[in-house]
Amino acid sequence: MAYELYYWGEIPGRGEFVRLALEEAGAAYTDVARGKSGQRRLSAFLNDAKNTHPTFALPALKDGDTVIGQTAAILLYLGDKLRLAPKNPEQRVWTHQIQLTVADLVNAVHDAHHPLGAHLYYEDQQEEAAKRTAAFRSKRLPQFLQWFETILANNPEGPACLVGSKLTYADLSLFQVMEGLTYAFPKRMATLRRRLPHLKALHAAVAERPNIQIYLASPRRIPFNTDGIFRHYPELDV
Amino acid sequence: MAYELYYWGEIPGRGEFVRLALEEAGAAYTDVARGKSGQRRLSAFLNDAKNTHPTFALPALKDGDTVIGQTAAILLYLGDKLRLAPKNPEQRVWTHQIQLTVADLVNAVHDAHHPLGAHLYYEDQQEEAAKRTAAFRSKRLPQFLQWFETILANNPEGPACLVGSKLTYADLSLFQVMEGLTYAFPKRMATLRRRLPHLKALHAAVAERPNIQIYLASPRRIPFNTDGIFRHYPELDV
Repeated sequence: MAYELYYWGEIPGRGEFVRLALEEAGAAYTDVARGKSGQRRLSAFLNDAKNTHPTFALPALKDGDTVIGQTAAILLYLGDKLRLAPKNPEQRVWTHQIQLTVADLVNAVHDAHHPLGAHLYYEDQQEEAAKRTAAFRSKRLPQFLQWFETILANNPEGPACLVGSKLTYADLSLFQVMEGLTYAFPKRMATLRRRLPHLKALHAAVAERPNIQIYLASPRRIPFNTDGIFRHYPELDV
Repeated sequence: MAYELYYWGEIPGRGEFVRLALEEAGAAYTDVARGKSGQRRLSAFLNDAKNTHPTFALPALKDGDTVIGQTAAILLYLGDKLRLAPKNPEQRVWTHQIQLTVADLVNAVHDAHHPLGAHLYYEDQQEEAAKRTAAFRSKRLPQFLQWFETILANNPEGPACLVGSKLTYADLSLFQVMEGLTYAFPKRMATLRRRLPHLKALHAAVAERPNIQIYLASPRRIPFNTDGIFRHYPELDV
């Protein structure tokens, strides 16, 4: 039975980390909100009082009767199912630790343009966003990227992947982070990328994987835009 | 061999979720920063270039040669080791999904007093904190708490625990959240608690567990203070 992904249909957002895992594995799935009666089906899912495992926020994944929310928990589950995670328990939890650090970076990217909260438009917190993004650009962002660069450099099995010598869901997520950051902060990333050779190589290698290449060229891939997590506001990339 | 917890010694913070799991299980552990030469040992750990699994931020847990960072990943690991998680894979990932939602709430609590970022003191972003906390208090906080209340109410095995009929690390974490929120927002929580009978009961039941009772009365339990995540600023609890 095909997986069902429940996520907003107009943004890559956090759902994209799940889409990439499903696409890389060639798994059969429905991106519910983007299909027939998508909005209605998404609402029905969110309001299903019989679901004893509701999700606080999207994305959520349905695999038969199993319903899972929280991006990192979905990837923990899919990692085993789709062979996108190591079997060794220690490496498996290390992969998850990396994914949770990706999630922290994603939150930091979102909070940079929405420091006062998601209930206000960016336009209503532009001054505060400028302050928070300045600190993010100069300090927090390089710290995060340097951490990923270092663990790639220190991987005993080589810097091609984050964990071991086989692609994991964490590599796919880091690819998406590099895509998003390059869209949102083209100037800043042009400078930072010079110090990140392993991250650059991973970014390029994932883009060339056959299933990912097909996916990126397909209409299933949603372009970045200023409704998502990674937003390009030129005034925030100075 | 005793577990080693690496975390800041002056605040409950995110380390407290790990401490509670270790304490409930009666596991032997060292809270490194609070022991002999604590600061030196914490620094040595953070600067250990030979650690191929470094943590981006504390807490981290050492179990022999295994080093794990990220609170939720540590609890995923300890849940199995300390029998604080269900064995059934679907229930195990559901427990983890709940923990990740606790982590989101904890982030939201922190961001409420630090909307412009952790690089500035609260005093330097007090105006912005007042705006963000107002929205958190009135909307986001009740949403989160209602979600936990609902999943307790809908647990097919009864509302005493979040998952199944046995205590998990997620219950311990939710106890800590209730402790922290009651400290930080006593007025607001006095109102909200009336609508949260199952959360109230879980909070009280965890506090009465023998090992937790001993722990809470011991000097190992660090009181909440205005350096941690849960901070009591009367002006933010109006």
